[in-house]
Amino acid sequence: MLQQTSRPVTAIDYNRYDRLRPIEWRGDHLHLLDQRRLPNQVEYLRCSSAEQIADAIRDLAVRGAPAIGIAGAWGLVLAAQQLQGRGRTDVGELDAAISTLAAARPTAVNLVWALQRMRAAAARAGGIDASSLADEAGRIADEDLAANRHMGRLGAALIAPGAGVLTHCNTGSLATSGFGTALGVIRAAWAQQRLAAVYATETRPWLQGARLTAWELQQDDIPATLIVDGAGAHLMSTGRVQWLIVGADRIAANGDTANKIGTSQLAIAARHHGVRVMVVAPSSTVDMAMASGREVDIELRDETEVVQLAGQRTASTGIAAWNPVFDVTPVGLIDAIVTERGVVTAPSRTGMSEIMAAKP
Amino acid sequence: MLQQTSRPVTAIDYNRYDRLRPIEWRGDHLHLLDQRRLPNQVEYLRCSSAEQIADAIRDLAVRGAPAIGIAGAWGLVLAAQQLQGRGRTDVGELDAAISTLAAARPTAVNLVWALQRMRAAAARAGGIDASSLADEAGRIADEDLAANRHMGRLGAALIAPGAGVLTHCNTGSLATSGFGTALGVIRAAWAQQRLAAVYATETRPWLQGARLTAWELQQDDIPATLIVDGAGAHLMSTGRVQWLIVGADRIAANGDTANKIGTSQLAIAARHHGVRVMVVAPSSTVDMAMASGREVDIELRDETEVVQLAGQRTASTGIAAWNPVFDVTPVGLIDAIVTERGVVTAPSRTGMSEIMAAKP
Repeated sequence: MLQQTSRPVTAIDYNRYDRLRPIEWRGDHLHLLDQRRLPNQVEYLRCSSAEQIADAIRDLAVRGAPAIGIAGAWGLVLAAQQLQGRGRTDVGELDAAISTLAAARPTAVNLVWALQRMRAAAARAGGIDASSLADEAGRIADEDLAANRHMGRLGAALIAPGAGVLTHCNTGSLATSGFGTALGVIRAAWAQQRLAAVYATETRPWLQGARLTAWELQQDDIPATLIVDGAGAHLMSTGRVQWLIVGADRIAANGDTANKIGTSQLAIAARHHGVRVMVVAPSSTVDMAMASGREVDIELRDETEVVQLAGQRTASTGIAAWNPVFDVTPVGLIDAIVTERGVVTAPSRTGMSEIMAAKP
Repeated sequence: MLQQTSRPVTAIDYNRYDRLRPIEWRGDHLHLLDQRRLPNQVEYLRCSSAEQIADAIRDLAVRGAPAIGIAGAWGLVLAAQQLQGRGRTDVGELDAAISTLAAARPTAVNLVWALQRMRAAAARAGGIDASSLADEAGRIADEDLAANRHMGRLGAALIAPGAGVLTHCNTGSLATSGFGTALGVIRAAWAQQRLAAVYATETRPWLQGARLTAWELQQDDIPATLIVDGAGAHLMSTGRVQWLIVGADRIAANGDTANKIGTSQLAIAARHHGVRVMVVAPSSTVDMAMASGREVDIELRDETEVVQLAGQRTASTGIAAWNPVFDVTPVGLIDAIVTERGVVTAPSRTGMSEIMAAKP
């Protein structure tokens, strides 16, 4: 099964397996890789205000739950610079920018989490100080990267050597501060020579798999094979994959997981075919205030995303479309939830409480 | 739930709900709607030889299991005209054309079934007579249309008024002689005012749902809503659909059903969410010589179908792709198989044997 060239087994060479930095702070603006143009063009946006960051989040120039949290935090730094320049240093002055940024995408909890953490830092400092807020945003980004590398090792340890894996959407460096969540586990497992094969769904409607995951894995020379979203169950039936590994946009207190549309369908198929399901997400994704996935606000996006593909009209003109971009996978279909605090196997409300009570 | 303008309940107005004729015999050539160009262009091919018909089948100008059977039969008429013109009237002379046509698509059994039926007709006539073979091809087409109308009524009777339905791929007039199989049931149920909502998957990679099913339903003023292939399970979780209704390319003797890639994934999700699964196909789709779906030869098509759209690259350049275009839904996930001979509920080897032994 195992067909790879020899690679170092003992340690993960992060220079080799983690090259992308899509979000970079440049003192007075955020240098943001425009993911709408990948893989054909590698172009960066210059975002100089919270509003521009909110636009970039809403329009999917930056996407992926951890990445939009980090971008949102930098958006608040830009707002703080502007407010401070006008002598407005009361913490409450941040709230308009927080509302604007939080409204850009409703489903991912990391965005709200990062904004609240930034506001708390300002409150601790007794007022708006852009410089100390920039330190906090930098810490959020650094901690995310460290969490991803740690989750990569934890998740990879669950994978028996010779396994094939399937992933959905993009959960890599492009979706995070770096290394990735689910894709970080795949990177780590590949570096440890555990993987016989990596499959990725194309992930309609936005093609995160075909455009972003494929491109990222190519940057790291990790061979991968693309399938259409409908081919997951058939792939599983052939025995070529042993794990479905996905990220999360919000994990409820009971372990129910909101993630990219198509995740629950793949998880149901995985259970049917005896393929195990791993969810990989930082603990900032866990919403202990939400009892179950039934409460998740599923974002509905514009119909045009469904009737077009890569900007070209694909569907019969005038046909209606329904475009929920997330779904909820019930915890009963999930075999392991991997966070930087540890792994919850056979996850449940109790297991989630324990891991969230653990020291980060 | 039921939101429709008033329509006749007692009878189905076939002039209203069955307008398309994509395959038309014109004496010395087949006038074939080029489905690769739909819905943007409505263009016809002029096929004057068996080779041209085989090309049209291979390149998906005509697709859908019953339709390629009918097109194959007309291809054999064209071969017979050519052979007869050269004085070659021995039945065995047809075999080269039969091989060429049968090789065009491997998974659908209807093509082989139609070619064998045509050869048997030639054998009964004691030699190649293009005129009598044209009669036989016309009968195959007429019988298919009659079968579809009958299956439409049989299938619609299974649907409780107020139901929502989801279909996959295209199984309508474009895939058959007319009216359609699974889409025929939806047409009939709509005409009988049973349906609250019709959903269709876009059906990657070839977008039969977005391009063909959407267009067909619009021709008949049946409102429908398109979803991406990954959204099926989420749609089912909302309670908006009670039936998944699909066609078949080959049904094994035990009821296992080969159909468009993505069907088995939707059927697994349907079982999980308590949505029932109906397979609609003429008895020519049933292959009693095949014990189970494990024996089905799943056609693998070119990777470019997954990484491109209309010549435009959608995926990262150089990424590998795997493109199986059918999968097998195990009979245990199917609630009803509807053929023109009758309906098999909770299908099994016994039920399939009984229906196939029944008088057509």
